[in-house]
Amino acid sequence: MNQMNNFPSQKLHEECGVFGVYQQPDASFLTFFGLHALQHRGQEAAGIACGDGTQILCVKGKGLVTDVFEKDALSQLTGANSIGHVRYSTEGGDEIENVQPILAKAHMGSLAVAHNGQIINAQDLRCSLEEKGSIFRGSSDSEIILHLIQRGKGSLLEKIQQACNLLDGAFAFLILTEKNLYAIRDKNGLRPLSIARKGNGFAVSSETCAFDLIGADYIRDVQPGEIVKFSSKGMQSFSYTSCVQERICAMEYIYFARPDSNICGRNVHTMRRSTGRILAKKDRLQGLQADIVIGVPDSSLSAAMGYSEESGLPYEMGLVKNRYVGRTFIEPTQAQRDMGVKMKLSANASVIQNKRIVLLDDSLVRGTTSKRIVLLLKEAGAKEVHVRIASPAILYPCFYGVDISSRKELISTQMSRDDLCAYLHADSLSFLSIQEMEEAYGGSSFCFSCFSGKYPTPLYQNILE
Amino acid sequence: MNQMNNFPSQKLHEECGVFGVYQQPDASFLTFFGLHALQHRGQEAAGIACGDGTQILCVKGKGLVTDVFEKDALSQLTGANSIGHVRYSTEGGDEIENVQPILAKAHMGSLAVAHNGQIINAQDLRCSLEEKGSIFRGSSDSEIILHLIQRGKGSLLEKIQQACNLLDGAFAFLILTEKNLYAIRDKNGLRPLSIARKGNGFAVSSETCAFDLIGADYIRDVQPGEIVKFSSKGMQSFSYTSCVQERICAMEYIYFARPDSNICGRNVHTMRRSTGRILAKKDRLQGLQADIVIGVPDSSLSAAMGYSEESGLPYEMGLVKNRYVGRTFIEPTQAQRDMGVKMKLSANASVIQNKRIVLLDDSLVRGTTSKRIVLLLKEAGAKEVHVRIASPAILYPCFYGVDISSRKELISTQMSRDDLCAYLHADSLSFLSIQEMEEAYGGSSFCFSCFSGKYPTPLYQNILE
Amino acid sequence: MNQMNNFPSQKLHEECGVFGVYQQPDASFLTFFGLHALQHRGQEAAGIACGDGTQILCVKGKGLVTDVFEKDALSQLTGANSIGHVRYSTEGGDEIENVQPILAKAHMGSLAVAHNGQIINAQDLRCSLEEKGSIFRGSSDSEIILHLIQRGKGSLLEKIQQACNLLDGAFAFLILTEKNLYAIRDKNGLRPLSIARKGNGFAVSSETCAFDLIGADYIRDVQPGEIVKFSSKGMQSFSYTSCVQERICAMEYIYFARPDSNICGRNVHTMRRSTGRILAKKDRLQGLQADIVIGVPDSSLSAAMGYSEESGLPYEMGLVKNRYVGRTFIEPTQAQRDMGVKMKLSANASVIQNKRIVLLDDSLVRGTTSKRIVLLLKEAGAKEVHVRIASPAILYPCFYGVDISSRKELISTQMSRDDLCAYLHADSLSFLSIQEMEEAYGGSSFCFSCFSGKYPTPLYQNILE
Amino acid sequence: MNQMNNFPSQKLHEECGVFGVYQQPDASFLTFFGLHALQHRGQEAAGIACGDGTQILCVKGKGLVTDVFEKDALSQLTGANSIGHVRYSTEGGDEIENVQPILAKAHMGSLAVAHNGQIINAQDLRCSLEEKGSIFRGSSDSEIILHLIQRGKGSLLEKIQQACNLLDGAFAFLILTEKNLYAIRDKNGLRPLSIARKGNGFAVSSETCAFDLIGADYIRDVQPGEIVKFSSKGMQSFSYTSCVQERICAMEYIYFARPDSNICGRNVHTMRRSTGRILAKKDRLQGLQADIVIGVPDSSLSAAMGYSEESGLPYEMGLVKNRYVGRTFIEPTQAQRDMGVKMKLSANASVIQNKRIVLLDDSLVRGTTSKRIVLLLKEAGAKEVHVRIASPAILYPCFYGVDISSRKELISTQMSRDDLCAYLHADSLSFLSIQEMEEAYGGSSFCFSCFSGKYPTPLYQNILE
Repeated sequence: MNQMNNFPSQKLHEECGVFGVYQQPDASFLTFFGLHALQHRGQEAAGIACGDGTQILCVKGKGLVTDVFEKDALSQLTGANSIGHVRYSTEGGDEIENVQPILAKAHMGSLAVAHNGQIINAQDLRCSLEEKGSIFRGSSDSEIILHLIQRGKGSLLEKIQQACNLLDGAFAFLILTEKNLYAIRDKNGLRPLSIARKGNGFAVSSETCAFDLIGADYIRDVQPGEIVKFSSKGMQSFSYTSCVQERICAMEYIYFARPDSNICGRNVHTMRRSTGRILAKKDRLQGLQADIVIGVPDSSLSAAMGYSEESGLPYEMGLVKNRYVGRTFIEPTQAQRDMGVKMKLSANASVIQNKRIVLLDDSLVRGTTSKRIVLLLKEAGAKEVHVRIASPAILYPCFYGVDISSRKELISTQMSRDDLCAYLHADSLSFLSIQEMEEAYGGSSFCFSCFSGKYPTPLYQNILE
Repeated sequence: MNQMNNFPSQKLHEECGVFGVYQQPDASFLTFFGLHALQHRGQEAAGIACGDGTQILCVKGKGLVTDVFEKDALSQLTGANSIGHVRYSTEGGDEIENVQPILAKAHMGSLAVAHNGQIINAQDLRCSLEEKGSIFRGSSDSEIILHLIQRGKGSLLEKIQQACNLLDGAFAFLILTEKNLYAIRDKNGLRPLSIARKGNGFAVSSETCAFDLIGADYIRDVQPGEIVKFSSKGMQSFSYTSCVQERICAMEYIYFARPDSNICGRNVHTMRRSTGRILAKKDRLQGLQADIVIGVPDSSLSAAMGYSEESGLPYEMGLVKNRYVGRTFIEPTQAQRDMGVKMKLSANASVIQNKRIVLLDDSLVRGTTSKRIVLLLKEAGAKEVHVRIASPAILYPCFYGVDISSRKELISTQMSRDDLCAYLHADSLSFLSIQEMEEAYGGSSFCFSCFSGKYPTPLYQNILE
Repeated sequence: MNQMNNFPSQKLHEECGVFGVYQQPDASFLTFFGLHALQHRGQEAAGIACGDGTQILCVKGKGLVTDVFEKDALSQLTGANSIGHVRYSTEGGDEIENVQPILAKAHMGSLAVAHNGQIINAQDLRCSLEEKGSIFRGSSDSEIILHLIQRGKGSLLEKIQQACNLLDGAFAFLILTEKNLYAIRDKNGLRPLSIARKGNGFAVSSETCAFDLIGADYIRDVQPGEIVKFSSKGMQSFSYTSCVQERICAMEYIYFARPDSNICGRNVHTMRRSTGRILAKKDRLQGLQADIVIGVPDSSLSAAMGYSEESGLPYEMGLVKNRYVGRTFIEPTQAQRDMGVKMKLSANASVIQNKRIVLLDDSLVRGTTSKRIVLLLKEAGAKEVHVRIASPAILYPCFYGVDISSRKELISTQMSRDDLCAYLHADSLSFLSIQEMEEAYGGSSFCFSCFSGKYPTPLYQNILE
Repeated sequence: MNQMNNFPSQKLHEECGVFGVYQQPDASFLTFFGLHALQHRGQEAAGIACGDGTQILCVKGKGLVTDVFEKDALSQLTGANSIGHVRYSTEGGDEIENVQPILAKAHMGSLAVAHNGQIINAQDLRCSLEEKGSIFRGSSDSEIILHLIQRGKGSLLEKIQQACNLLDGAFAFLILTEKNLYAIRDKNGLRPLSIARKGNGFAVSSETCAFDLIGADYIRDVQPGEIVKFSSKGMQSFSYTSCVQERICAMEYIYFARPDSNICGRNVHTMRRSTGRILAKKDRLQGLQADIVIGVPDSSLSAAMGYSEESGLPYEMGLVKNRYVGRTFIEPTQAQRDMGVKMKLSANASVIQNKRIVLLDDSLVRGTTSKRIVLLLKEAGAKEVHVRIASPAILYPCFYGVDISSRKELISTQMSRDDLCAYLHADSLSFLSIQEMEEAYGGSSFCFSCFSGKYPTPLYQNILE
């Protein structure tokens, strides 16, 4: 554990989704459907690589899964083993180079990697690799993984083990060869990765919701520090370190994952719902008077349901989300500020007029969106808005892939609770404490570092600057 | 009123969305945002026409509003008055001809029309116009409206009045000239159309949710049989017939409109919620035992909330909708049937396992989707599924634009209630009666013809064949 | 004949290409290939309509023929009869409305029209049709033709005859019904249209080069004032007027048509070559001393070959054309003026250095391009450049579809021959006289109105303003 | 030198075009125009990289230069130094990886490479690099060049020198750093690369025609075995080997380059013209009787002009090329064989009917196209067709980038001259001998290996298999 003192700028957010299948007819089609179920984890780009026993073919592009894979693309991807990736965001000039899976072609055998997470010693590893003659075409961590493996000694499994021991940070990745598939998770298990059985083969996925879509049956999660190899011998487990602990990222439950997914065996919706219940209990003790409960769609609806159930207050549809928010190049004119949030959310005036509202939100980072939502509700006639955050105050930056910027941008570090309440134009404001969070989550096998500042991995100078 | 006996095939579904503004700086931008708020009413195509006092410019294309209007398109559409259209579906070979607004260029002045609804005497009018020398380039009703106006006598207002008196069916349309804007609704008010004020000008929209987005203040609805003219004299009201009654289509509330819209002064979400309450009351009387209430997202969630509130059963997130269902050309392989519904909806197994579920659905047409949802829930471990339809059984076709096919396709006309329950694999099934519907809706100023067979307009031989 | 005195602005250039086949398997494919051979007549848009005996289907779009008709588009166009169109240029906001063929759908039978030419009384006809209740969606003359036919009396043939008698100007058009095909030419035969036989059916085309591509055998040209009907009775000839004369546009030979086409039985390349020979004879008489002959690619190469042959001076490749000049949005920066002509043409310095050059150009309109070419040659080291124009000076505007703007833009009307020579930076300049042109062309059955001001049709006030 | 005995399959054709500028305002725009002038060297893909002193930005894509660089792309490429590439053909699954320039991002400085040519020991180098831990993402030789440089020792110049000494084959490439530009040519000078001055800076290009377009003045060619460095010190020359000779590929003159380019100081058109003259002299000695001379457009027109001049026979336009041959997915139906060549070329029947034709073609590889052209001429009425090839018979494969397949596909190795003449349906056939070629070219500093089998570099087992 590692207590931080100064919190500087951070690298690019790299939380994404990975999916793979082993020994499946229609492997590329199943991977397409799997990625579709993981689409919420990344809308910027998608790719699929397929191994048919003798070669690896790869198709990728920018956009949604359904955009990238048109008519004939999937049928060209023959082969029974496949991995895919959906990407959350990209940066830099030549960005197609960063779209995954990344394929290294070699005369001794090709490798494709699809990776979710953040290697926090990436810069050091990169410099050291470049000094040894490696060339990087993009800026993604996945290239580093490939290079480390390529430079390892022994069997591919041994090379992967050596590479993993050099990587610090949060990672869950899939490696595809012409014949086999490997699934790996970092030693703290910061990023999720689950395994399922389908017919005589297997599937692996960042979230279990993808298994439901393709009709695969969940077996278990890849364990922290584990390498699972899928080959003609079936599924085999290897470890690359004995120094492991489970510290799954709490943000997966709070915000990122789909409510119907189970992460490390716990249902996301149910976890969110319990946080709502705890907030309701606190408010009851403090005698809060309100008329209705509403949640910010979609990630805060579960907490709002829990709050409603516990408090007895009616759960209402006070905010409506526009389901067609696509990419638009149209900038609202000056006279139309705040159009951004209005294009996504609208207040249902008939429901909230003259009402005292408990508004559930999953988390509070910069506070700008929450403030706009409170104002939206008040403009639509809400009498009071009591903001309830279904997680603790974020006081520390995350270095493992969640896009929370430097400490200065974290509004909870910048003002007192009362000032923050005033800033949001809220009538009251409360968070969960870390203890309440642990109570709701039923344990401590989580990474709460953005709340507590206790990081499960070493930190590096370059990320602190 | 007109009681029907035989119910044959129907024309193309033409329910869409229209939006317009009068005397607004950035008129095309406001129309863009307005259409964006109406996107749920049509995703196939979109268009905007702008009048700048001397000419009308028009841009349109296939796809979502954000797809059609890229970077420079809107800034080219200068002018303070504007109308726009989102289209639900298209048919036929040369379909760009049918995308609206449709513009007629004439040396005496141009006209653009954006139309929502269904002209049920279209075929007769079309034949008669062709015999007089008119030429049609597409198959949309809007062309008929334009031709009728063009052939009228007197002022443009008089021409519109004459044209409206020739039209039977459901319609709400906007007419844009170089200088003025007209908003018209059929004499039964079957299709919605509302007016708002913004600054010194006005806005008109199929649904009020679009007013919220652009910051316009709702004034009133266009009345059945009314022509509202917006000109330099402000807003003026004219009528084209004295034979009017309000018969707004019930499907707008049941299924079509956004929950935060008010149609004819009634909030859609609130109306849906009351239907859920009535269903809960019935079930309580009959002693139904259940554990949780869930709704089919998104249109049935309101009814499920109402049911939950009335019954005291917890409202749960038993079904999760994939928000990224775009167009895909990828056909699931044979081994992956039912993928269609699974790509859109997934059952949240953790929530429903071993539960007795009340499942709210907004309406039941062919029954195929409902059946698949029941099976989805049962496969995910539901102990019982009690299907509750928040509207009456559909026994008659609609001729006014709602896509309900011939009577044979309406499953409620084909089997008894018990057989239907078995077909759906449900443990019980109930509908609202028409009386309960009227009770929930608080009145009879609705078109319930698909439930009752009582049509508010004459019917024509050609549509009965 | 009609002598003009004042020459004002002109309408849009509407010279295009039409092609059709009757009773052919793969009709749409043959039409695709035919349009491809006519691509030089229009690169802005293309369309094909097919009749299969019961209906007409139509596909069209902007761009080259090979862009518009992708993979599946042609196979959807079933039917043995087909017409197509390539369009040279478009104007106005909603321009897809103007892409041809234009299809009118009617319950009594549909019509598609593909038209090449310019109706000079279009504005009068349009006003009059609008007053009778017709609606226009675009600005193309083809819509006028359709409306006139629709409003005619009697059989379709009679309706076409009546319509043609109302049209003044230059036109050659094809009409497709579900079962038949009609080919029509104006009474002066200003625009070309030829007929060929293929198997048991027929083909019609603006130029014969399209017949070669599809393997059809040329029969004859459609005659001025003739309507050729292709039906189950084979090919039948009808006339709509007895007042006919042949006045094919000279610009077809000078500039527009492909060198391997025969227009009205005369080969385009051979015609151009003879004009070069006559220019060489004149220069010999006047004792011009020069080293090499070059032509502006591509349309002036034939004349340059003729000049070389007659004069004995070597024909050289002094100018090279970049074959990849596509559309580009990249504007050369200020420092890169004249880039426009350089992107298309470059001087071959090794060939022209220190040479006295005879430069053949097909015609001289505004003079700006010719001036740039002369400068290009001089910068590359040419000692002298003698400009020879293979046609007479253009002194009058054209109203029949060739894009020659108002008289003021015609440089030959603005300065003396000597001043013009100096303006071009040429060392000498000569044109063909009209008499030499007639000598070269072997007859007077041509429209030379832009040289002589003698127009074969009445002129209208609106086009003179 | 290296005499080959068995000639097996070959690698992918990699002949392309490179262009770069140093110290130019609007560097990316100039590179765009330069690539446009080199478009004939590659239509599959294009890319530009720009260095602005601190970083390198790169944009690339598939298609023509004008397709890849739309509106804003170029203005994003800031920086005064730039290199670009047009690519002739691509192979393999993930082909965007192969589009050049290829950029390696490194913390010590980035490198971009644009390469024209073929590294014949690529496979050995690649294996050896992979064994040392290098990873390849595509299959292009440029990646090998980058890896070799990255693994070198000392300054960048030294690294490039070391890398070049490891490369065998034909290559001309540009290296861009954040601040400098390097231009390199192989020690036989097999691929062309020229230098020009523009203002205070420089330009480099595969062909000089690109200099004319941007207004740069040719200085000299990069010499075989030379590295030219452009930096703040101006232009400096370095060599990486003393073992050099000039062996520029003859195919550049025969077929590949633009006629207005000078390659190694010799004008391409003029070189082609002399080959035509020599063929004419031979025919005069042998008393060939003919009426006209025609060339296959565009690359054989120069030779035809030379033949015409020497023989006194008229140069005619007997074949016309369709300028709009784009990519098409439309496959001619079975009944339409030979459509391929007809879509590109058509015979001008009026010119060739009953004529004895001398047909100039630049070279003869497989013979299929030539045969179709002879048949096209005969079908159009030619009395005799005498085929004259303006280069020697191709008897050996090329390993340096010209797409000539295995010896079996080379028709001249498969049949006698007489059989070949009969196969082509020609009335006579002659080639240039190697001696005549040397006479026409005025020297022996050319690579004639495809005619003579004498290769200027070592050959490798892998390319012989």
